[in-house]
Amino acid sequence: MNVSEFRRRGKEMVDYVADYLEGIEGCPIYPNVEPGYLQPLIPTEAPQEPEACEDIINDIEKIIMPGVTHWHSPYFFAYFPMASSYPSMLADMLCGAVGCIGFSWGSASEATLVALLAARTKVTRRLQAASPELSQAAIMEKLVAYFSDQAHSSVERAGLIGGVQMKAIPSDGKFAMRASALQEALEQDKAAGLIPFFVVATLGTTSCCSFDNLLEVGPICKKEDMWLHIDAAYAGSAFICPEFRHLLNGVEFADSFNFNPHKWLLVNFDCSAMWVKKRTDLTGAFKLDPIYLKHSHQDSGLITDYRHWQIPLGRRFRSLKLWFVFRMYGVKGLQAHIRKHVQLAQKFESLVRQDSRFEICAEVTLGLVCFRLKGSNQLNEALLQRINNAKKIHLVPCNLQDKFVLRFAICSRMVESAHVQFAWEHIRELGEDVLRAEKE
Amino acid sequence: MNVSEFRRRGKEMVDYVADYLEGIEGCPIYPNVEPGYLQPLIPTEAPQEPEACEDIINDIEKIIMPGVTHWHSPYFFAYFPMASSYPSMLADMLCGAVGCIGFSWGSASEATLVALLAARTKVTRRLQAASPELSQAAIMEKLVAYFSDQAHSSVERAGLIGGVQMKAIPSDGKFAMRASALQEALEQDKAAGLIPFFVVATLGTTSCCSFDNLLEVGPICKKEDMWLHIDAAYAGSAFICPEFRHLLNGVEFADSFNFNPHKWLLVNFDCSAMWVKKRTDLTGAFKLDPIYLKHSHQDSGLITDYRHWQIPLGRRFRSLKLWFVFRMYGVKGLQAHIRKHVQLAQKFESLVRQDSRFEICAEVTLGLVCFRLKGSNQLNEALLQRINNAKKIHLVPCNLQDKFVLRFAICSRMVESAHVQFAWEHIRELGEDVLRAEKE
Repeated sequence: MNVSEFRRRGKEMVDYVADYLEGIEGCPIYPNVEPGYLQPLIPTEAPQEPEACEDIINDIEKIIMPGVTHWHSPYFFAYFPMASSYPSMLADMLCGAVGCIGFSWGSASEATLVALLAARTKVTRRLQAASPELSQAAIMEKLVAYFSDQAHSSVERAGLIGGVQMKAIPSDGKFAMRASALQEALEQDKAAGLIPFFVVATLGTTSCCSFDNLLEVGPICKKEDMWLHIDAAYAGSAFICPEFRHLLNGVEFADSFNFNPHKWLLVNFDCSAMWVKKRTDLTGAFKLDPIYLKHSHQDSGLITDYRHWQIPLGRRFRSLKLWFVFRMYGVKGLQAHIRKHVQLAQKFESLVRQDSRFEICAEVTLGLVCFRLKGSNQLNEALLQRINNAKKIHLVPCNLQDKFVLRFAICSRMVESAHVQFAWEHIRELGEDVLRAEKE
Repeated sequence: MNVSEFRRRGKEMVDYVADYLEGIEGCPIYPNVEPGYLQPLIPTEAPQEPEACEDIINDIEKIIMPGVTHWHSPYFFAYFPMASSYPSMLADMLCGAVGCIGFSWGSASEATLVALLAARTKVTRRLQAASPELSQAAIMEKLVAYFSDQAHSSVERAGLIGGVQMKAIPSDGKFAMRASALQEALEQDKAAGLIPFFVVATLGTTSCCSFDNLLEVGPICKKEDMWLHIDAAYAGSAFICPEFRHLLNGVEFADSFNFNPHKWLLVNFDCSAMWVKKRTDLTGAFKLDPIYLKHSHQDSGLITDYRHWQIPLGRRFRSLKLWFVFRMYGVKGLQAHIRKHVQLAQKFESLVRQDSRFEICAEVTLGLVCFRLKGSNQLNEALLQRINNAKKIHLVPCNLQDKFVLRFAICSRMVESAHVQFAWEHIRELGEDVLRAEKE
């Protein structure tokens, strides 16, 4: 969908929304369908080719609306009000477009926490089943979780929140968590009477998009009965391309997996997708059923109560965004988006390699290039400062084994080869200034 | 803003969004303003009278956009991509309009958890400062938190997640938590060697909109050095009306306070507003600063890093919704909305009182009426079943001291006196059917 079609469709959507709310009094307040009605009405897979916008708009009426409880109907007197107003909707349209976010790579952090809490509950119950005299606190005191020293800070934060020890496993020369280092920490901790229970492996780390070795780490988790959570927040989107699937090898060992379609799959923030191998591990961890939340289907097995899967009870109707994007891009359109970003990263990498004053600091697998001027950290800090003060492009740094490194991430849906070319020439010029300044 | 103005403004916003994204390449990628630039440009209070939409749209350019980092610019190479696409934006427009949510009264539950975690950290550090030999687990094992037996289930859930004991305090005849009952539990637990550290008081409970007695509970929390969190998820919006302010008396004792503008203040889901008396209590609890999240202002005191205030790192630009709503309704417009809902609840209450076969089960303070047929729980369960099977209106029940009670909550922005009248006549008819069926 190009901008001119968006202008047209957006205005049609405004009218659709206005018509809907004008006519809501006439809507049956409560759906006349049974849970599960939707499944036969939608395909099991996203379309390969993009679909026409009309078809989707028509399906809203045919497929989606029959399943909706009309919370804004004047005949809705349940629960409490769910606020809605035209100004707020206007603001949300702008919010989606600006898409500037309070600090985040989105709620992969929430997924990690939920997985940790589920694992904490699971191991506690297992140990208490064996020795009922053990208190939860006595067990928690001994619990220990592991993550690569390259993992996102939200992983360590999950440990702080969950009240359990977390240990960083030193990554190897390619910034990956390997069996040997994990095994070593494990043996030490078991010898010290601790209880290893949780491992977070990252596919596509934030610093340099490195990949922990699932085929090595997975079997250890299985053998030691540790929960394996995979954080693929950024890289996960790339796995829709067959050529990147091999990076997923070992996923079969995972108890839970998360990636953020709102990063790289063209779905506006926020949208984080989590899978769990055994849902009862998750729902069992903190399930409560007050009468005002009970409903006739909760034991029917026909529906999934996602409120038991997450920290907040609330969620927006976010699947709608995925549904629109899958259909209007098709798998092929989404694959093309991923591949274009990877190619632009490779272009930037080759530009850097052509300049002997610069070095590439980590393997370029997807859309991130880690590079620096050969020389001191101070030199590279000065370069980054000049880049961000000039305000023509925006970069952030990372630390790779005590080296201060610049991250060049392909981000925008609109980024083209020319922008990457411009960025490189700009960086090289500022690099020359920095080197000159150093000599003086 | 009426529906016809929304049609016009919505289409203008579509064009604004399209123009913005078409022209984004020309935007300075990075704002040329300093933190704090915004404060002098906006009033310290919401306007009393509604403002014109033009003024707000103009202020977007004048006030908001200069402070925006353009994440979708093709010159943005920082962090990772933040996905954005036209289809996704279309879907979000519909999502906002439908406003049907995965199960929730929104993330008041998150606020409660964050407060509990902060309190847990605070008490742990205090005790470890006094006796450094104490382990976190040894302390956590003894921690106990309190909430009214009328509190929302998310409160107890926060305890499960935070790994601490929670105790329900029996509420009084008006379903309020009082000093005597809290004091009693407190003495028992202290005698048993437990460490009371956290109390959740609710203003406007989910079941019957009762109010815990802050003026009694507050001083106890102060005396015992317990964190007091106030959950005003629903009722909080009403405090913009002076006539309801007295319900807040005692708020001065609170360490943290939360309400959900997305419930009753015309701001689309999700939008939950939390205050904390001492921000370092919150940020100190789980603050981590990896290099890729560092920025030049983080120690300047000029900005507030909300990523330290919440579980997910991510947040949408939700203040925009509040800003639009405050300006386009004005305080008076918002007050009128609250007052209209309260009046409609009073109308329904008086209709129920006129029928001697029914009874009112709790004081009607705001927009919720708890009522039932005089008689058995089975009778009222049958009534509710008929109501929800007829699907003309939608209600949910609650339990009030072992009585099965029907909740009639004024919800829709569009609900008028006629809808309430219709609902009552419908309920009364079905009530007659149920009574007749019982006699047969």
